[in-house]
Order: sequence, then C-alpha cells, then structure tokens
Amino acid sequence: MPIRVTVSSEFSHDKLNERVRAIYPDGMHAVMADGIREFAGDAVAVRTATLDEPEHGLTEQVLAETDVLTWWGHRAHGEVQDAIVDRVHQRVLEGMGLIVLHSGHYSKIFRKLMGTGCGLRCREAAEREILWVIDPSHPITDGLDANFQLPHTEMYGEQFQVPPPDELVFISWFEGGEVFRSGCTWRRGKGKVFYFRPGHETFPIYHDKNVRRVLANAVKWAAPASSAPYLSGAPNIKNPIMPVATKHEVDESIHR
Amino acid sequence: MPIRVTVSSEFSHDKLNERVRAIYPDGMHAVMADGIREFAGDAVAVRTATLDEPEHGLTEQVLAETDVLTWWGHRAHGEVQDAIVDRVHQRVLEGMGLIVLHSGHYSKIFRKLMGTGCGLRCREAAEREILWVIDPSHPITDGLDANFQLPHTEMYGEQFQVPPPDELVFISWFEGGEVFRSGCTWRRGKGKVFYFRPGHETFPIYHDKNVRRVLANAVKWAAPASSAPYLSGAPNIKNPIMPVATKHEVDESIHR
Amino acid sequence: MPIRVTVSSEFSHDKLNERVRAIYPDGMHAVMADGIREFAGDAVAVRTATLDEPEHGLTEQVLAETDVLTWWGHRAHGEVQDAIVDRVHQRVLEGMGLIVLHSGHYSKIFRKLMGTGCGLRCREAAEREILWVIDPSHPITDGLDANFQLPHTEMYGEQFQVPPPDELVFISWFEGGEVFRSGCTWRRGKGKVFYFRPGHETFPIYHDKNVRRVLANAVKWAAPASSAPYLSGAPNIKNPIMPVATKHEVDESIHR
Amino acid sequence: MPIRVTVSSEFSHDKLNERVRAIYPDGMHAVMADGIREFAGDAVAVRTATLDEPEHGLTEQVLAETDVLTWWGHRAHGEVQDAIVDRVHQRVLEGMGLIVLHSGHYSKIFRKLMGTGCGLRCREAAEREILWVIDPSHPITDGLDANFQLPHTEMYGEQFQVPPPDELVFISWFEGGEVFRSGCTWRRGKGKVFYFRPGHETFPIYHDKNVRRVLANAVKWAAPASSAPYLSGAPNIKNPIMPVATKHEVDESIHR
Repeated sequence: MPIRVTVSSEFSHDKLNERVRAIYPDGMHAVMADGIREFAGDAVAVRTATLDEPEHGLTEQVLAETDVLTWWGHRAHGEVQDAIVDRVHQRVLEGMGLIVLHSGHYSKIFRKLMGTGCGLRCREAAEREILWVIDPSHPITDGLDANFQLPHTEMYGEQFQVPPPDELVFISWFEGGEVFRSGCTWRRGKGKVFYFRPGHETFPIYHDKNVRRVLANAVKWAAPASSAPYLSGAPNIKNPIMPVATKHEVDESIHR
Repeated sequence: MPIRVTVSSEFSHDKLNERVRAIYPDGMHAVMADGIREFAGDAVAVRTATLDEPEHGLTEQVLAETDVLTWWGHRAHGEVQDAIVDRVHQRVLEGMGLIVLHSGHYSKIFRKLMGTGCGLRCREAAEREILWVIDPSHPITDGLDANFQLPHTEMYGEQFQVPPPDELVFISWFEGGEVFRSGCTWRRGKGKVFYFRPGHETFPIYHDKNVRRVLANAVKWAAPASSAPYLSGAPNIKNPIMPVATKHEVDESIHR
Repeated sequence: MPIRVTVSSEFSHDKLNERVRAIYPDGMHAVMADGIREFAGDAVAVRTATLDEPEHGLTEQVLAETDVLTWWGHRAHGEVQDAIVDRVHQRVLEGMGLIVLHSGHYSKIFRKLMGTGCGLRCREAAEREILWVIDPSHPITDGLDANFQLPHTEMYGEQFQVPPPDELVFISWFEGGEVFRSGCTWRRGKGKVFYFRPGHETFPIYHDKNVRRVLANAVKWAAPASSAPYLSGAPNIKNPIMPVATKHEVDESIHR
Repeated sequence: MPIRVTVSSEFSHDKLNERVRAIYPDGMHAVMADGIREFAGDAVAVRTATLDEPEHGLTEQVLAETDVLTWWGHRAHGEVQDAIVDRVHQRVLEGMGLIVLHSGHYSKIFRKLMGTGCGLRCREAAEREILWVIDPSHPITDGLDANFQLPHTEMYGEQFQVPPPDELVFISWFEGGEVFRSGCTWRRGKGKVFYFRPGHETFPIYHDKNVRRVLANAVKWAAPASSAPYLSGAPNIKNPIMPVATKHEVDESIHR
C-alpha cells in the first residue's frame, strides 16, 4: 500500500502575486506534490490541501487517511483555525509524519509541537546557499552528494529557536556569513517531524531536483513504521503485572 | 549572589485533606523550600508562591526576580490562568530554570514546553520505588549513591509521553512491574527544564533526604549559566557580515 | 534485493556445554538466523559465521557482501583477532549495520565503537524480565505490545557504561530490583548500531517470538538506507566552493 | 578548592618552526594556560605537560591530581605512547574532563573515546571563520555575543566523522563555503568531553580573547560535578534488592 501523503500549503503568495505565480502557476503545492511523485514514484499516493478549502482541506477524514502531511505557510499563519491545529497535533502524536517547510517554522502547528518560539534571523538578498550533508546514514540524504547548492535563496540564520533536534541532517552555509540547521528531526509521540529550510516563494526552490529528492525521501522516512501501541492519557492501571507485596492503606477518597 | 528560587505549588490537597495536612501542616511548598535550603544552603534564596495568591504569586516582578521556578500541581491544573502560563513560558525561553515535579507532568506549562500529551500509566498502591542513577556525571546526582529507594509511592509507568529527553538522569523500578524515566532534562530556548518524578501528596516524599538533595542539586543545575544573547522573534538582518556578491533583484513589495 | 545478513556467534557454550546444547542443538546462531528469517521473510538473505572458521567467517569478501552483521559472544571475546575487529569497525563506519546481543556488550568491537568500558551489573538467578517499549514510533518495535516478558533471564542492571544512546527503545524491569536500557541505538559513521539485551545461553531466549521479531526488525532498521558519500580520512580540499577573498601568506613548508 | 587543570600540548611546531615560535615563543601551551587563567582566575590552578617530558608529563600522579585535561597535538599524534592514552582514557571514564583542541581531532585519545575515524575536510588558505553560538544556555558560551570571528584560520569542513554530539554549542562558517560543528560535547563514563575547533599553530588563535574565554568556560564546565559512584567492570551482584520469587535451577559450573 502506498504512503498516503497530503501536501498542505496556504496558497496565498502564489495566488496573489504575479511574480510568484510565474514560478508556480498552479500553486506551490502542485509543484511540491509533483516533486514527491517524481522521486518516490509508486511508493506514494499524493493529494493536496489549501487554506481556503473547508477546514483547510484537513478534515477528520482526510487526516485519518494521511500517513504524512507536509506544511507550507507564511503570511497567513494567523488564519489557520486553532481547532485544525489541535487536530493535526493529535494525529502527529498518534503517528502521522509531518514535514514542515521553510517559513512554516512560524506556523502554529510547528510552534505547538516544539514548545519554543521558533524564531531565527532572516534576510532577503537572493544569496547563495550551500547545504552540507551532516548525517550520510540518514535515509533523507539518499541520492545526494556531500553537499548541494541553491544559487538564490532567502537567508535563515542561527539561532534557530527550536529544541535540540534528535537528528541533525543538514547545515546550510550562506554567502552573507550565516549558518543554519536546515534539516532537523524530532519525535513527538508516535509521530516523526522533519523541518527542511529551503522553500522561499520568490525563488524556484521546489523545481530544484535535490530539494524534490529530499521531500520524497522525507515522506518515506516520516511514514509510520511501527504498530506498537501509543499510550494516550494517564490511565490508572489497577492490576500490576507483579503482585505488590507491601500494601499500605491509601484513602482513595482524597484524590481528585 | 544566591540563586533566586521560587517554589510554586497549588496548595490544595495539603489544605483540604486531613491526611495530607498531617504530612505537610504548612503545605508541601514549605517542606520543598526547606529541603532546597537544607542542601543548597547559602547558594540559594528561596520564596514560595501558591495558586490562590494574586496571579498565583507569579507576578511579572516575581518572575523577573526568579532564576529557578519549581512547579507542583495536581487537581487544580485547570485553574491556572493561561496568561500566567504564557508568562512563565516566556521566562523559561529567556533563561529561567524550571523544575517540574511529579503530577506536574500534566500541568499546562509542562505540556506547552514539551509539545506532547505528557501522559503516563499510574497506580496508587503504595508500592516500593527504586531510583537508579543513570548518569553519574550529572550535577543533579551529586551526593547520591548508585540508587535510592522510596518505600511507598504512587507508581508512574512508561510510556511517558514526552519528547526524548536531552539527558536521562534517573530510571525508576516499581514493585508492580513498571519502569519510568524519573529524571529527565530538556532545553527550551535559554531555559533548562528538569522533570523529577517523586512527590505524591499522600506520602512524605519531600521529607526524604535524597529527594531533598535532588531538589537542591536541580536548582543549582537549572540556574542561568550564560550571558550569551537569546534571539527573540525573527529579526530581518539587513546587513550581512560578509558582502553578498551575487545580487538578484527582489521585489520587496510582494512580501507580507 | 534482500538485505544480506551475517549472523555471527562464538559457538562455544553451545558446543561445549550439554545444557546449552539441549536448547541450541545446532548452535545459537542457527536459531537466531531462523528467527530473523521467520519475521523478515523474503526481505533478508541470512548466513552465519562462527569463531572457529578461518578469519572467524568474517573475510573481506563476506563483510563486503554483508549489509547487517549480528554479534553474539561471551567467554571467548579475547580470542577474536584484532585485525578482524578493525575490519568490522571499518565496515560499520562505511555503512554496515551492527546488532550487538546480550554478553556482546563486552566484545572488542562494541567497546571500540562505544569508546567506553561497557560494564554493567549482572546476576544469574533466572529472574523475570519485563521489557517496556519506550519509543513506539521506532521500526524496531513493530508488532510488539506495550511490553513483553521473559520468565527466566540473567539480570543486567544499570549503570550500563555506554555513551548516552541516540535512541532509547526498550527499558527492562527485573524481579530483583534493577532496571536496564535494553534497546539502544547509536550511529557511528554511516553505520547504525543496535544493542539488544536479551540472550543468555542457558535460557531459550532466541526461541521467544518477541525476541525473534525484534531481531528481524532490527536487521531491517540497520540496513544501509542512503547512498550519500561517507567522508573518509582528512582530505585537503585545495579548491574552495567560493573564492576566498582574503589571502594570507602561508608557509606550506612548515607543516607535517 | 580550585579546579586543577593540566594543559597538554605536543610542543613541536612551536619548538621547531620559526614562524610558529614567533607567535608562541614559550610554546602554545603557555599561551593556552595564560588564557585559562585570564578568564577563570582563582577558580583554576593550571599546570602544563608536553610530549617530550617523561610519560609526556602525564604520570599517574599528575592525572590523579587533574580535574580537567586539555589536549593539543598535530604532527606527533603517532608518538604518544599507547599506555599513556589508556591511562588518560581510564581517567576520563572515572570523571576527568577532557578538552580536545583543533588538530587534536586526530589524536589517539579522541579517536578512542569517539569510536569513529574523526576525519574532516581541511584547507589552509587563511580564510575568515565566523563561529555562531547555537546553544546560548550553555555555560561554555558565557560572555560571548551571538557570534565571534577569527580573521585567518585553517578551514575544517563537514562531514566531521564523530558520533552525533550530546550538545552542539558552536557552528562555524568559512569563507570558502564550508561549515563545521566547532563546539561539541559528549559524555563518556563520568567524564565530560568538549571538542573546540579553533587553534591552528600558524595563526595567533590562542591570543584571541573569545577563544581564551571559551577555554576557561570549558574547563569550568568539564570539571567533575558529582560524587555519585561510577560503575567499573561488570560486577556480579549476588544479592538482589528485592527477593527473587521465581527460582530456577542454574548450573553455575557451565559458565566462563
């Protein structure tokens, strides 16, 4: 069975702005979806969801049928409904993979999962970026060389205000003197989260073959990989596995 | 200058319930504060804060004058005001240490910092707990032996629904067959967070000398230790450190 | 193409001792290999290697054709040739997966990869072990329940003298009061390493279905997953990617 | 009591080469020791040790009286005696801090502690380096700004062939296009290890105030901080803490 991928994007700059529309005539999500299909082939079944659809296209049913969700947002983070954010959050804890892209660092869902501010330094000067592979064992790096370059990007610089990542996959070099942890993974509940830096809307980033390859690899990596049960809530376990020898009188009435 | 510690506790079971009052006549916070003073001595200046004080005793000024905050709550998590939670959260990101105790695993502030559900298995059967030191290099373990025991505790069992900790300091063994990561650290922004499991209100846990020692050690470990600047927000850095050679025309009008 | 697995075992207790022979008439390696085949099926092609074969069955060619190596040893750690250990070490750095089992914690190869003493507490009292799943997102846990039990095992207790693992998959509970990090992963170069605790020769551990399932899952997890280049040595990179603007006269003659 | 620091350096380039001698007339170790004293003051008592002293100046007694050892080596890694390396290794496991500097990445002791090849890319082109503070909570960053610069350095570029660090403190940017994890920590047994990249002998790196500050901070961070016992070897624990209910006949004669 293929990995069921939902590519979510706010579809805003790419609708309103002529210049962005020239790069992404059908929206950024269409190009991302193509990129994933190009490099993951039959391993995936990809659909898209945009902000202006009912429930942002992320209904209970869509999420129930999604193994991996990708998230791109920028100017409209504030328009994403809190109830949908909570729904996505719950699904991640239960095992859905989540790929957060570029300016998605400031999305409600990413901040909620990280527990931090998720800030960074930025600059739009169309500068060169070189992404170095830090962890060549990681499936997300499959097919890449020791580094790859993007000729013109928006700069993101440290400090990236996230918790220390579980795995550090890429570090970026920028022409103006900054560095950035551009590929990071974290586990949250049963779900795997990958943040990938490239993706500014005014540059044709999602047409780049290395970026597309990383998207496809990330989707495969983030797909649920274990059927082991996820513990939800704080269940009261009446029956211990082993007999509890030392009994102590507890006044149950005092609690809660 | 001593480390300024604020011991925060909901002061609820220990006010309402005769049995808990017998163990903690002046409230649990009073005993925790004593424990920290006993083992940290002149290194600390300790005050307390309880739920029913204005702003839960955690005013802007109190937090500004707090290096490390400890948090105990249980039945009244829902009564903690969201604005106060946000205030504490911001202070942690800026560098205040936070020690979360026992049932505080379900507090709003801990869940907000972790980004996960923070559930676990539990059972009240007054069973024996053995806490093993996993990381004997960690300052939080100073003065301890290879393990220490609590004769009667509430059981907390895995899965503990938190992100993988940055450091694992203790693992607990329980009579009924469960295990638990009882001492865990995470970094969030400039702030250090330590979760410590023991502490159920119906047992005299905070009178135990090893527990008190851990509290004191944790306070010393969590105190701010660097003056390096914390990046807040996502500042636009107009001037690169190095000249950006490759210029690309960017239409600034399209953004935001 | 199937994952090429080599099951390596010293084949010593299971040859010399009647009691162990009763449990493993064809050697422990035969039962481990069967277990991997049972749960990994066509995904693997398994062969075995034992200490008394020439080069311990781990020739250059065998290792070149091995994606994942499993290692069991106990009484004969000292008989393993250093040259073979170096060969296995190099292959791990280049990407071969390594599964180290039970008393293999004291093998030369594991100590060389860890950089620590790899000691632990132990006791043979045929006591009960309960293994708890700590990371239910991990592929190594696929098919398991929240925990599984072994009725009679040798106890291993903390401190386990290894570097903090990259991922903590299982924690064990023992009847006598100890706990142990029973499933741990580390990355070394391009290679993935998994340590799995169960496996004492005097108990039928490798006949247990959960143990066999973990072996099969671990092999699949540890198989090479990226073609990205591994940097070997410390190459002198004459040509920078970007022109180096600030030249400084360097007297090359002084070096080395 | 002050932290007892031993600054170890091979004292080779700085003895043989005129140019290096011009920068470090009394040897690099003398300048490092001064730097540590400058920023750590009364908190430290510093001595030095060089390769040509008996036992490289690292006798049993010197190590027994050393809380933190710093290590610089380059051309003479091969001349360091294995017995001394083993002695230092053992002391680290028991709790001595170790600061490894620059070309020390290829020292025997660092490779033994890491378990990996410890390679990297390098280039001598006197290029600019910018070190970014990644973890502003870390005591090693105390007194630093968001970044600091070195005008002329040897470049070290990724992949740095070390295990994923426990904490990532600095990332470097280089003029020629590379990046490097320039400040990394690992725990090994009870000992804390810090690798710090800057330090090439042909540049006056150890005269730089930020570098000196980092050395002093690192020494304070790496000093032993807990008296909790370190488990050595694999002791057989005859007496469990809890009675072992389920007895199983074990033939002790079969083992070892």
